[in-house]
Parts: sequence; structure tokens; C-alpha cells
Amino acid sequence: MTNDKGVAKEVEWRIKVEDGPWKRAGVSCNMWTFITSLYFKVCKFFKKAWDIGVNDPRKFIHCLKVGIALTAVSLFYYLKPLYDGVGRNAMWAVMTVIVVFEYTAGATIYKSINRICGTTLAGLLAFGVHWVASRAGDQWEPIIVGVSLFLLASTATFSRFIPTIKARFDYGAMIFILTFCLVSVSGYRIDELFNMAQQRISTIIIGTSLCIIVSTTVRPVWAGLELYVLVTENLDKLANSLQGCVAQYFEAQTASEESNKKMMGYKCVLNSKATEESLANLARWEPAHGRFNFRHPWKQYLKIGATMRRCASCIDALIGCIHSENKSSNDIRKIMSKTSIQVGDISANVLRELAITITSMTKSNKLDILVIEMNSAAQELQNLLKSYPNTQKNDDAKMEIPIMDIIQVVTMVSLLTEIVARVEDIVNCVEELSNLGKYKPAMSKCDKSKQHSTDSKISPEQQNEEEAIVKTLQVV
Amino acid sequence: MTNDKGVAKEVEWRIKVEDGPWKRAGVSCNMWTFITSLYFKVCKFFKKAWDIGVNDPRKFIHCLKVGIALTAVSLFYYLKPLYDGVGRNAMWAVMTVIVVFEYTAGATIYKSINRICGTTLAGLLAFGVHWVASRAGDQWEPIIVGVSLFLLASTATFSRFIPTIKARFDYGAMIFILTFCLVSVSGYRIDELFNMAQQRISTIIIGTSLCIIVSTTVRPVWAGLELYVLVTENLDKLANSLQGCVAQYFEAQTASEESNKKMMGYKCVLNSKATEESLANLARWEPAHGRFNFRHPWKQYLKIGATMRRCASCIDALIGCIHSENKSSNDIRKIMSKTSIQVGDISANVLRELAITITSMTKSNKLDILVIEMNSAAQELQNLLKSYPNTQKNDDAKMEIPIMDIIQVVTMVSLLTEIVARVEDIVNCVEELSNLGKYKPAMSKCDKSKQHSTDSKISPEQQNEEEAIVKTLQVV
Repeated sequence: MTNDKGVAKEVEWRIKVEDGPWKRAGVSCNMWTFITSLYFKVCKFFKKAWDIGVNDPRKFIHCLKVGIALTAVSLFYYLKPLYDGVGRNAMWAVMTVIVVFEYTAGATIYKSINRICGTTLAGLLAFGVHWVASRAGDQWEPIIVGVSLFLLASTATFSRFIPTIKARFDYGAMIFILTFCLVSVSGYRIDELFNMAQQRISTIIIGTSLCIIVSTTVRPVWAGLELYVLVTENLDKLANSLQGCVAQYFEAQTASEESNKKMMGYKCVLNSKATEESLANLARWEPAHGRFNFRHPWKQYLKIGATMRRCASCIDALIGCIHSENKSSNDIRKIMSKTSIQVGDISANVLRELAITITSMTKSNKLDILVIEMNSAAQELQNLLKSYPNTQKNDDAKMEIPIMDIIQVVTMVSLLTEIVARVEDIVNCVEELSNLGKYKPAMSKCDKSKQHSTDSKISPEQQNEEEAIVKTLQVV
Repeated sequence: MTNDKGVAKEVEWRIKVEDGPWKRAGVSCNMWTFITSLYFKVCKFFKKAWDIGVNDPRKFIHCLKVGIALTAVSLFYYLKPLYDGVGRNAMWAVMTVIVVFEYTAGATIYKSINRICGTTLAGLLAFGVHWVASRAGDQWEPIIVGVSLFLLASTATFSRFIPTIKARFDYGAMIFILTFCLVSVSGYRIDELFNMAQQRISTIIIGTSLCIIVSTTVRPVWAGLELYVLVTENLDKLANSLQGCVAQYFEAQTASEESNKKMMGYKCVLNSKATEESLANLARWEPAHGRFNFRHPWKQYLKIGATMRRCASCIDALIGCIHSENKSSNDIRKIMSKTSIQVGDISANVLRELAITITSMTKSNKLDILVIEMNSAAQELQNLLKSYPNTQKNDDAKMEIPIMDIIQVVTMVSLLTEIVARVEDIVNCVEELSNLGKYKPAMSKCDKSKQHSTDSKISPEQQNEEEAIVKTLQVV
């Protein structure tokens, strides 16, 4: 039996071998397709990654900055005199740089300060606990340390759920737990506890200072500046969307890809809440830079963002109505066209003027006039709608309007009125910002020509800052 | 001169002393106010913190879990046999627990896997570099190590800007840099590099396993379940908002605080994008739990969220129009009232049915009928508006309508129609989810009564899971 089976297997094997080359060819063909598809996928991935860097070269620069900071801190290992100073604890400096160095200066400073404060506070507390425990005798020592560890770690973990602490000291709370555990636990074994703690704190200070210096001096990326650029950009996008959708509806333009893309800009506004909040949280850690002082009212930008989103959701509804099936008659569209486009244009101009106000950090002269114009245009639009049947030629012969012919235009007008009201909310928020930030009034043209002769007074620093803003705007 | 001055000062001092007691009383009074105000502030803070925990007791439980995990891992220090096994590197296990243990199981697993993979990969690479460098001679060694450190750290930092990597391996990339630096830099000094690396990896594995075990077994908080609850809750909130605002307008209800709060529920929907995205990112790391398998289509929840936000922004515009100044005449409001409220109610029912579909993970029987009803109600509303002047009693006498009387109602109808269209988008997304998740069709009532007799077949695990969902829903 076993022999039979052996023969049968051999035969099977022989038969299988016969189609070997074909199969092998098939397998190698599959392999080849797999490899080429993988190759193209990898190429695509690298192309995408490269594009990210090319679109915003500051990302490349950030990577170089990290590399420089790390190489600098690793000198503590390579150079004998430095190594002798801090010893094996140089590792903590390297670790600090890696963990603390972030893209924006604000984030780096936030993490640095949190790390230093958390470490110091936890270190002191751990010493206290260790001292108490060591007096209590060998038996009680691990129990006292264990219980205090449990209680403090739980409390610090809970504190991270409290919104105010989460926004400002989340990282600090984590570092607090980390240091407390390391010191109090290793305190049980290491006798040179004081030395270790001292070295740890000094290495952390070395690491964080290096990070703060590099991130605030070598082509710094300020979270505050990013927020400021984001908000002004969003105002422009909102203006383009509003103007674009009104024009597309009333002028019955054929929507080019370019204009469609512009019209969809409001979506960026709707989606930027999380980014705005994190940037505002980080911006408050930054020192005075450029034209922003230390206590610049960053929170106000969040309010502006919120009102912008309210305006954007109205534009979203407006665009939905444009694409609905109830098309209005050309007649009423033609009549309302001019004033509606005017309302759209003036509102967009108000938004752009607000962007200029924020960018130039001066109170606008034109804003009040533009707001009045916007409101009167909106009122005119309503009056036009009110008198609609009478605007037609046969003035006396009162005629009936089929309601379906006007439903879309009426909705447009109502939503435009609502948008005008919401734009006014944005205006109020920006005015509040200009009061909080103590913006100076903008110069009129004749003032400007006077100023021109004293232009040389602008400090080179200020000029650099302006260049940086222009560059950031270009990049974003 | 100096003497004069001295006398003058003494006189001044005497004069000042005279109003000393008053001043002192003032200062102590100020101090007292300061202390009491501080006391009340601190009390308020603790009250708020306590409320956070009481509103969601899982946060308290999380803190206890962290405490337990930390105390357990610190046993490696206290117990001699364990300490002899891993030595001073037990510190890494403690650190791992602190850094890796997160609120949701998904986040813990994500960080654990990233930490292990990042450490292993970087460790191997660092060994390779170290080996090459050690062959190159003493002079070249620091240069090779330094250059490789610079290049790899920069590349890994850049990779964190790529969205796909940021979403899945952000923490891993950081740990990669960290480990590579520590191993390659300390490799220059420590000769027992291999031992150190091995111990580090083993302690990390000990720490992460402990975290994963505690976070998935002791009252786990699943990111997937949170996302699922968030989406269903948001659907309910949207339904309440929609129904509430239509009812408030047409029934001219006096808005109670309760109903106003319900009506504002749509704002939660508008603001939940960031939370949804982070939860979906974490949910994909979680193993099968309860009724969710490993490859549950979490991404689809994001699509549902996006369509919900589109619907919510339309509701926002609707609420804006309700509060506008152009009040419609009672006449048309009365005529449109019944059908409008019907549209609002049916749309809200559709949204609630969707919430039930997602909650019960079964395909609804009623959904198709409800959608048809909703569309026909919307059509009816349009027809009613179309025939508006004729619905009045004097059918033949065609009369003119003052347009300002109808503008608000027309806008309402238009926006309701748009909302109905957007609700249909949500329906499509949920149907897609039910196909992707292979939901079973819901049982009809007679099926249910049959099922009732076999109820005892439900496993205790499934029951527990259902209880957990009910509890989570209550908590949220």
C-alpha cells in the first residue's frame, strides 16, 4: 500500500512538473505586475510627499531645523568636555529635543514650558514623598510610595479632562506624572537621587532652550501669524464664494472650473474650526513678534471665525437653492439681477475690507461707508421685491404672478438679506478686535503721501516681518 | 546736605506712620477679599471638575485604570525577582505606561503598536549604522553617525507632514526618531549596546501589553462605540432641531428654554467634525468588540457626518430666516402650516429611523416608506404654494398678493425642500453603511414574537454589550 501511494505521488508529481514552466511564467508575470504596480504606488507616494514640501517650503525648513537641533544636542555625547559635564543624562537632552520641537514656535514654547514646570513640580513633590517614606521605615516605604503614586497619577490624569487645563497644561500634566513616577519609583533603588534629579532638570533646560532658540530664530513659524493669515484668507475666500455664486446665478455664466473652485472656498471656512482653535491656543504662548505683542487678543480671532462659519453656512444653503429644480422665470431674474449682484459685490467688498483691516492692523476709513452701502443695497433689493409686479410696464393693470416663477428669486433675496446681517456680525467682531488690539486709524491718501517722505523711519525688522507675511500669504 | 536729607526722610517717615493703622487695616481688608475670592474661585473650579466626572463616570474609572496600571508596572521596581530580570530598564516600562495609556482602547492600541514598531525598526537601523560606523575607524565614526542621524531625523520629521502617515503613524515616526537617536548616539559610549536595546524592547513590550490588557478588559472605552453613539446622537439632535424650528415658526409657540435648547442641537452637529475624525482614526485599530468586527466601515460614519453637517447648515439658515424681520402674514402661514409641520415631522422621523438603523445595526423596513412619504409631503408643500392664491375662498376673483407677506414662508418652503433633499443624502449614506456593514434586515413584529421564544439564546456577552451601549447613550 505504501509503495503504491509512493508511486502514485511520483506520477502526480511528474504530471504537475509538466505544466511547471507555464505556471512559473504565470507566477513571474504576476510578480512582475505586482512589482510594477508597487513601484508606481511608491513613486506616486513620493511625488505627493514632494509636492507637500514644494507647496510649503517651510515644511522642508522645519525638517532641517529638527536635524540641526538634534545634531547640536548630540554633541553632548561626542565632545568629551561636554559629556563629562552632564554624563549619561545627556540622553534626556536628546529626548527633550525630539519630543518638544514642534512645527510652530508657539507649540515648541508651550511644550518646553510645560515640560520644565511639570518636571520641577513633580520632582519636588517626589522628593517630599521620598523623604516622608524613608522616615517611615523599610516596611512602610513601598506602601507610602505606591499609594502616593496611585493618588497623584489618578488626580493628574483626571485634571487632563478639565477643558482649561487640557487647553494649556495637557502636556505638563503628562510630564508631571512621568517625572513623579520616575523619581519616586527609582528613588527606592538609586541612592544618588538628588544628583539624578538635578542633572535631569539641567539637561531638560539645555534641550528646551536649544529648541526655543532654534524655533524662534531660524525662519520661525509663528502660530499667531498662521492664525492671522488663516483668518484673512478665509475672509477673502468667503468674499469670492459669495460674489461668485450670486454672479453665477444672475448672469447665468457658464461655470468654469476656476470659478467653481473659487465658489467652493466657503467650505474651507466651514472646516477650519479645529485648526483655528489649536493655533489660538498655541499663539498665546508666543512672545511679541513682528507687529503682535505678547497679549494680542488671539481669542477674538476665534470669534471672528465663528461668525464667518455662520455666514458660510448661509452661503451653503444659497448654493443649494441655486441648484434646486424650481428655476425662476427669466423675467424676474432680469429685474432683480442688477441689485442682487450689487448686494453680492458690496458684501464681498466689505469682507475684503475686513481682511485688509486685519492684515494692515489699522482701522479702515472705508468700512463704515461700505456697511451703509451694503445695508442700503439690501434694503433696495427688498423694496424692488416688494414692488415687483409694479415694476413691469403695464403699471396699472394689476396682474397675478405664478408663485413658482418667483420662489427661487425670493429665496435668494431672503438668504442674501440674512447673509448681509451675518456679514454685519463679522464686521462687529473685527471692530472689537481692532479695539482690543488698539489698531490705529488708517491713513487717507494725502496722509500717505506725507508719510512717504518719512518712510525711511520703518525699522528693518518691521520690513522683514512684512516680507514674512507676504511670503506666508503666498505659500498658503 | 546728607544730614538734611536724613532729617527730611525721618519726618516723612513719621508723617507716613501716622496713617499706618488705617492703611494696614486697608491692606488686610484687601488681602481678605483676595483670599476669599481666590477661595471661591478654587471651589468653583473643583465643583466644575467634579461635575465633569459625575456627568461621565467613565472618566473617573479611566483615572483609576491609569493608577492601577502604573502601580502594577512599578512592582518591577519593588519586587526583587522582577527587578533582577529587567534591572534599571524597568524605568522604560513605567514610561511606556504613562505615555501610551489613553482614554479610548483604540488610542492605547494605536500608540502601543506604533511604539513597538517604531522602536524595533529604529533599533535595527541604528545597529546597522553603528556597525558600519565602527568599521570605518575612530575618526569617521562620529561623522557617519551624525550625518545618518541628521538625514533620518529630517526624513522622519517630514513624513509626519504627509496626511496618510500623520493619521496612522504620527506617534510611530516620533518614536522612530527617538529610538534611533538614543541608540545611535549612546552607541558611541555604551559598549553593551545590544543588551540595552534588547532590554528596552522587552520592557516596552511589557508596558504596552499591560496597557492594552487593562484598557480593553477593565470597563473599556471603545473609540468605535463612541463614534457610533456620537453619530446616532447627532442624528437625533438634527431631528429635534428640524422639528422644533418648524413647529416654533408655524405654531407660534412660546419658546421655552427646554425647546430652545433642543432646537440648538444642530450646532453640536456642526461642531463635531474634528471629534468624528479622530475617533474614526482610532477605531480602526480596535479589535472586534461587541457587534463591531475588525473591519467595520468606520470611514462611512465620516461620510454620514459630512452629509449631516450639510443638513445642519441648512437648518442654521432656516433658523436665521425665522428670526428675520420680514414676518409673513398670518393668512399664508395658516394655510401652509399643516403641510410644513408634516414635512418637518416626517423628515425628523426619517432621521430618527436612520438613528435606529445605525443603533440596531439592521436594515429598516420602514425607511423606504418614510422617504416616499417625506418626498410626497415636500411635493404637496410645493403644490400648495403653487396654487396659493387659489386656495383662498374667493376662488374666481383673482387677487394680487403683496410679496412681502409671503417672502418668509416662501423661503421656509424652499429651505425645507432643500433640507428634504439633504436628508435624502444622509439616507443614501446610511444605506451604504448598512450594505458595507452587511446589516441584516430588521424583523417585522410577527417575526419578533417568534424570536421572543428563542430569546434565551442571546449570549451574556451580547447582553453586556447592549447594556454598555445603553449606558454610554445615557452618559453622553
